[in-house]
Amino acid sequence: MRQAPASIAGDLALLSGFGATQDGIDRRLFGTADYAARSQFVAWARADGRYVTQDRAGNVFAMRAGRNAASPILTGSHLDTVPTGGPYDGAYGAVAALWALRALDADGIETECPLEAVAWAGEEGSRFPLGCLGSSVFAGLNDLAAVEALRDDDGLTFAAARDGETGLLRDVPLRVETRAPSAYVELHIEQGPVLERRGVRLGNVTAIAGQRRFVVEVTGESGHAGTVPMSLRHDALGATAEIILALEAEARSCSEAVLTVGRLVVEPNQTNVIPARVTFRVDARSIDEAQLSRLAEAVVAQAELAGARRGIRARVEAIERRAAVAMDGRLRAALAVSFGTLGVAALDLPSGAGHDAMCVATISPAAMIFVPSAGGRSHVASEYTSPEDLDLGVAALARALIEIDRRTAKEH
Amino acid sequence: MRQAPASIAGDLALLSGFGATQDGIDRRLFGTADYAARSQFVAWARADGRYVTQDRAGNVFAMRAGRNAASPILTGSHLDTVPTGGPYDGAYGAVAALWALRALDADGIETECPLEAVAWAGEEGSRFPLGCLGSSVFAGLNDLAAVEALRDDDGLTFAAARDGETGLLRDVPLRVETRAPSAYVELHIEQGPVLERRGVRLGNVTAIAGQRRFVVEVTGESGHAGTVPMSLRHDALGATAEIILALEAEARSCSEAVLTVGRLVVEPNQTNVIPARVTFRVDARSIDEAQLSRLAEAVVAQAELAGARRGIRARVEAIERRAAVAMDGRLRAALAVSFGTLGVAALDLPSGAGHDAMCVATISPAAMIFVPSAGGRSHVASEYTSPEDLDLGVAALARALIEIDRRTAKEH
Repeated sequence: MRQAPASIAGDLALLSGFGATQDGIDRRLFGTADYAARSQFVAWARADGRYVTQDRAGNVFAMRAGRNAASPILTGSHLDTVPTGGPYDGAYGAVAALWALRALDADGIETECPLEAVAWAGEEGSRFPLGCLGSSVFAGLNDLAAVEALRDDDGLTFAAARDGETGLLRDVPLRVETRAPSAYVELHIEQGPVLERRGVRLGNVTAIAGQRRFVVEVTGESGHAGTVPMSLRHDALGATAEIILALEAEARSCSEAVLTVGRLVVEPNQTNVIPARVTFRVDARSIDEAQLSRLAEAVVAQAELAGARRGIRARVEAIERRAAVAMDGRLRAALAVSFGTLGVAALDLPSGAGHDAMCVATISPAAMIFVPSAGGRSHVASEYTSPEDLDLGVAALARALIEIDRRTAKEH
Repeated sequence: MRQAPASIAGDLALLSGFGATQDGIDRRLFGTADYAARSQFVAWARADGRYVTQDRAGNVFAMRAGRNAASPILTGSHLDTVPTGGPYDGAYGAVAALWALRALDADGIETECPLEAVAWAGEEGSRFPLGCLGSSVFAGLNDLAAVEALRDDDGLTFAAARDGETGLLRDVPLRVETRAPSAYVELHIEQGPVLERRGVRLGNVTAIAGQRRFVVEVTGESGHAGTVPMSLRHDALGATAEIILALEAEARSCSEAVLTVGRLVVEPNQTNVIPARVTFRVDARSIDEAQLSRLAEAVVAQAELAGARRGIRARVEAIERRAAVAMDGRLRAALAVSFGTLGVAALDLPSGAGHDAMCVATISPAAMIFVPSAGGRSHVASEYTSPEDLDLGVAALARALIEIDRRTAKEH
């Protein structure tokens, strides 16, 4: 039988011990800590009487049977973390799925569709160079054979890691067949400050933002910091500062887009040498494809402008492009009704971060529920959501599963 | 007897083999290559019949006797390099001193004062954390005991390195007494583009620029690049870009000051994370103390402005301060006359880079001669001055030594 701790906050505290470092939680796919977390997920699910399976991507599923053999309604998130992650990103949604199913047990509620909790493998892309690894294979967006050939920083392939000591779980059967779920709901922390600032405890996600990423390489002319007059300089960092501020202004003038220069490297990076080269990355996101295109054009235009003004060369390379994914309208309506039955106000808001729901949305209706993140912090050790908000999210998810099941059954 | 190569360009090519790497010349104080370069300097000087000594700072002196026992007129530069240095910075002035003395021998010219060629130790500060190490000890600006306690990156003290295998030269006597020279002239490559741009082959240095250095630490608020709306951000890199451009504009509005942000580090420096902190260094130089003060005030003011505008914190720390050093007016006049006898036009110009002459100027009249640097390049493998300009510099130095000796003798 299941033991204490008898709260999801307690479960997450327990999980946060797997991979704990002085800088947060480091729980990368198929590492020791990740194996321990998946094993714990299975132990909890089995204690609740679920039938547990795993697939060859490393995803783990825990089934609660329904009255009929329809495709399951799927809910969950991921157990892996970034190298300095917090206790809630991903883990919350995976463990909350188990708690929501348990809440239905406690209330004696049977559903028409089977309900399935899932712990997706490798959402963060922290070990193998592919984000949403498990859910993208599940959705058929990436071929398993291609994923198996991916290598981590040590040169180990995904296949070797998965088939090694801390890869697939030793006592969990492989599922032979994967069916598209009837619906998918993912509960997640917001990872941003909007709910907290608005004083709202639940978010009904409208869409997951599209993303464009660029590498900009600005090549100027180096020189001694003391001997080249200002009028003869072609300073790569000065040109870069102009580009950064112009792009920031452009993003501010968009209604809901965001743009970030998070990574920037100066060469040769010496106090007494005029920068010869600056390489930086631009990350632009929006749920509106027109705004994304406008930002993408601005990156190229501002690089050219700075080049012409400064006598430098700014080369722009597009390195990533992801379309925005709208959440399913009918599922969003079901969520809104469920939140209403709890008597709790909710906010419609976009997700700037990517999630497994993006992938699953390509094969089934998908929706997401957000709970607040203290200070909007995420991917850091100080990531925090209150136990009350964690519990509220579970309650909302349980109601949502019931409502979605009711509507799904009606359609059939 | 002295062997070929019979040109200073040839001598410098030979020296550039000591410490050659794929990235340039790495000849740091008391390393194997530096020992070899000092030994070669001694071999050349002795082949010319000079009496060679060294002091406990590692400086090497080669004496050409005069008619009387007055304090010598000193000329030279340094043999050490930055880790990726070129063949001319420093080495040219040290070897040219030997060539100038040799030119006087060839012409049968006797001087009143002794003439002394010097190879200063550790001007670049590339091994021990002190620039102009040898000349500052010579001038009494730094106490030898304090310098002996300085440590390199491996934790080895200056004293241990100097007393080790490739420290002081094994067969060169220590000089027991140091007298302030009657005058000091240093011949050096410009390291900047001004002479080349003006089409002038000789520079008569007016002053060595003063310098202020600052570390600025900009602390904003981190966050997920996708989840924090633009209006809620406190981006440390955006604030930094504003400060950099404001300081650049301020420096451009000064008549001859220069200001450089050459070193800049972003944290955590991840594509998908809003920069939490940017640390950068500001290097400001001018021969005009008023302009330096204006730039120093601008650093503080712009940091405060950006802080207020952005809701970030920008902490400014002054880490270095060096006053401008004017070259001696009477020596400059002597140089002008010498250049005139060669029939070559010269340009009065400031030195933005620091030189050993700054230190020697505190104990004796000092002046500097510049020759052009191709493209203004220095501290790089592609540093270049034409053989013709190298020879012209030697001829100008030889004439200058004669002229300075004539004027010095008259005064006594």
